[in-house]
Amino acid sequence: MKKTTLSVIPGDGIGKEIVPATLKILDTLAEIDGGIQFEYNQYPWSCEYYLEHGVMMPDDGMTKLQQSDAIYLGAVGNPKLVPDHISLWGLLIKIRRECEQVINIRPAQYIKGVKSPLAEPNDFNFLVVRENSEGEYSEVGGRIHSGSDEIAIQNAVFTRNATERTMRYAFELANKRNGQLTSATKSNGIVHSMPFWDQVFQELAGEYPDIKTQSNHIDALAAFLVSKPDQFDVIVASNLFGDILTDLGAAVMGSIGIAPAANINLNGKYPSMFEPVHGSAPDIIGQGIANPIGQLWTAKMMLDHLGLEELGGLLFRAIKETIAEGIKTKDLGGTSTMNEVINHIHAKIKS
Amino acid sequence: MKKTTLSVIPGDGIGKEIVPATLKILDTLAEIDGGIQFEYNQYPWSCEYYLEHGVMMPDDGMTKLQQSDAIYLGAVGNPKLVPDHISLWGLLIKIRRECEQVINIRPAQYIKGVKSPLAEPNDFNFLVVRENSEGEYSEVGGRIHSGSDEIAIQNAVFTRNATERTMRYAFELANKRNGQLTSATKSNGIVHSMPFWDQVFQELAGEYPDIKTQSNHIDALAAFLVSKPDQFDVIVASNLFGDILTDLGAAVMGSIGIAPAANINLNGKYPSMFEPVHGSAPDIIGQGIANPIGQLWTAKMMLDHLGLEELGGLLFRAIKETIAEGIKTKDLGGTSTMNEVINHIHAKIKS
Ligand SMILES: CC(C)[C@H](C(=O)O)[C@@H](O)C(=O)O
Ligand SMILES: CC(C)[C@H](C(=O)O)[C@@H](O)C(=O)O
Repeated sequence: MKKTTLSVIPGDGIGKEIVPATLKILDTLAEIDGGIQFEYNQYPWSCEYYLEHGVMMPDDGMTKLQQSDAIYLGAVGNPKLVPDHISLWGLLIKIRRECEQVINIRPAQYIKGVKSPLAEPNDFNFLVVRENSEGEYSEVGGRIHSGSDEIAIQNAVFTRNATERTMRYAFELANKRNGQLTSATKSNGIVHSMPFWDQVFQELAGEYPDIKTQSNHIDALAAFLVSKPDQFDVIVASNLFGDILTDLGAAVMGSIGIAPAANINLNGKYPSMFEPVHGSAPDIIGQGIANPIGQLWTAKMMLDHLGLEELGGLLFRAIKETIAEGIKTKDLGGTSTMNEVINHIHAKIKS
Repeated sequence: MKKTTLSVIPGDGIGKEIVPATLKILDTLAEIDGGIQFEYNQYPWSCEYYLEHGVMMPDDGMTKLQQSDAIYLGAVGNPKLVPDHISLWGLLIKIRRECEQVINIRPAQYIKGVKSPLAEPNDFNFLVVRENSEGEYSEVGGRIHSGSDEIAIQNAVFTRNATERTMRYAFELANKRNGQLTSATKSNGIVHSMPFWDQVFQELAGEYPDIKTQSNHIDALAAFLVSKPDQFDVIVASNLFGDILTDLGAAVMGSIGIAPAANINLNGKYPSMFEPVHGSAPDIIGQGIANPIGQLWTAKMMLDHLGLEELGGLLFRAIKETIAEGIKTKDLGGTSTMNEVINHIHAKIKS
C-alpha cells in the first residue's frame, strides 16, 4: 500500500466549506485503486489564523508542506479581515515561490450543462500555461517623492531560465495535444520584456518544427478568447497575462466556480499545489451553496499529476455526468447544494 | 466661416482605403452646419513611407501635426514590412506622447444589428478611460547578460500627476453619465504600482462622494466584461489594462471593426487624435471589404470633441440606422462593400 501525503489547506471563506467535504471522494478513489492511501495533514492557515497569530503560516509551515507529496488548497484571502498583499504574499504566492511551483496550468473547456455566456461556444478546449515565478509579479520596485511629485516604479523581471522552461513545458504539452501553441505577447507596446519573450519563443519554435506556433498580442488574444475560443489549443503566457487569460477562460466556460489550476514544481524537490481559480467568496459562506466543481476538477489534476490518471479520469467523468444531469449549484443555474453535488459525484464514483 | 484644420494620416493597410473615403461625410456634415469648413492636410506617413525614407515621419512632421485642430488617423503598422516597435513607436505612440494625448477614451456599447458573441448582451454601454502616456508602456528597462543567464527588466512608471489626471477625467465623465466608476487594479499581485494606483483612486473617491466607485482586479474585470458587461459604466485603467479591456469591449460588441478611440490632449497645447481600434489588416486590403464603422465612429468622437456635438449625433444616428438596416460589411455578417456602407451613411446624412 503506497501512502501519499497530502497537505490540505482549506484557507478562507468557501475554501473552508468545500475542501473538507471533498476528501471523502479522494478516499473512495483510493479504495477503488486499492494500491494507494491518502494521508491528510490539514492546516488552518488563513486570514483568521493571521488575526490570531500575526502570520499567515507558522515558521515551520513551509518545511511541513515541502515534505508532502502534493498540496491541496481551497482559497486564500479575505480583504475585509486582512489586506490582500499580506494574505496572498504570505501564503498563496509564498508557497508558489518557495515550493518552486514555477508553472501554473489552467484548462478551459466547454462543459455540457454549464451555460456559457457565449452564443456559440463551439466545444472549445484550450489550456493556458502560465509562468508562475516572476515576470510582472515582482517585489522589485518602490516609490520616490510624495504628494504631487510621487512616482511608483514597478519592475517586471524576465529571466531566460524561467521564460524558457515555461515555454518548453508548453511546447511539450502542445506536442501531446493538438500540436498548436499560441504565445501571448505585447511587444508592440512593452518594449523590453516582451521582445525578449518573443525572441525566446522564436528560438524554441525552431526546436519544435512540428508545433504550429503563433504570437498574439494580449489585447487581441483576450478578444479572440471571446470571439473564437475554439481556435486555441495551448497558450503560453507570462504571469500577469496568464492570470488575465485564465479568468477569461473561466468566464467563457460560464463560471469561475468550476475552473481549476495546478501550480507545478518541475525539479521534483517540492510538491506541486492544486487550487481552484475562484476566490474565497466570503459573501456566500454559511449558505451551503458554494460550487465544489473547481475544487474537484483541481483534485482531478492532482490525481493525474500523482500518476493516478485512471482515478483522475473517473473523477472527471463523474463531474461531467453530474453537471449534465442538472445536479448543480445556483451559480450554474441549478438548485443543488454543495453537499448534494459532492454526494452525487461520490455516489457515481462508488457505483 | 470657421476653418478647422484636420491632419489626416491614412497610415497602413485598410487605413489607406477607409480614411480618404470617409472625408466626404465630414464635408457634408460641415455643409449642414453652415458655419464651419474642414481643411485637410493629408500625410502619407506609414510603413511604406518608412521603407522609402528610413523614418515613419519627417523631421518637421510633428510640428505640422501640432498646428492642426485635430488628427484623424487610420491604422499604423504592417509587421511584414516594418517591425511593430519601429512603426508604432515612430508614429502612433510618438504622436500620443509628443502631442501630450495623455488619455485614451474608448466606448463600447451594444449596437443593434451587430451580432455580439454574447448570448445575452443586455444593451451594455460602458466607456474605458485609459492612461495613455506612461505606466507599463515605458522605454525604461533593458537587458543584462546573454545566453542562459540573460535577464530582461521592464519598468512600469506611474506618476501621481498622470494617474490623478486620468482618474479625475474618469470621475468627471462618470458624473456626466451614470455616476458609476470602476477602477482596474491588480494590487494583489503587482505590489508597487498597483497599490499606488489604488491609493490615488481612493483619495479621489473622497472628493467625488456622489460617484459610486469600486475596484476590480484586472483578471476578474476582464471576466466580468464577458459575464455582465451591462453592469459597467465608466472604467478607469492603466495603459496596459486599458488596452486589454478595450479590445475586450470591441470583442463583446461583436467586431473590432466598429470600435473607435480618442487620444485626448488635456492642456490645449496640441491637437487630440482620433483612430479606430482596429489594425491595418493588410490581409484584406484591395478587396473593398474593410469595415468603415470604426473610422466613422471615431469621426463622431472627433466632432464631439471639436464642440460639434450636433453633427456628431447626426453621424452616429446615421451609422446606427445603416447597420440596423443590414447595410454592413462581411465581418458583421453583411454583404455590403466598404463604399456601399459609406455611401449609405452619406446619403442618410444628406437627406
Ligand atoms: C498598436 C499598439 C501599440 C496599441 C496599444 O497597445 O496602445 C494598440 O493596441 C492600441 O490599443 O491602440
Ligand atoms: C490572488 C492573486 C494574487 C492570484 C494571481 O493573480 O496569481 C489569482 O488571481 C490567481 O490567478 O491565482
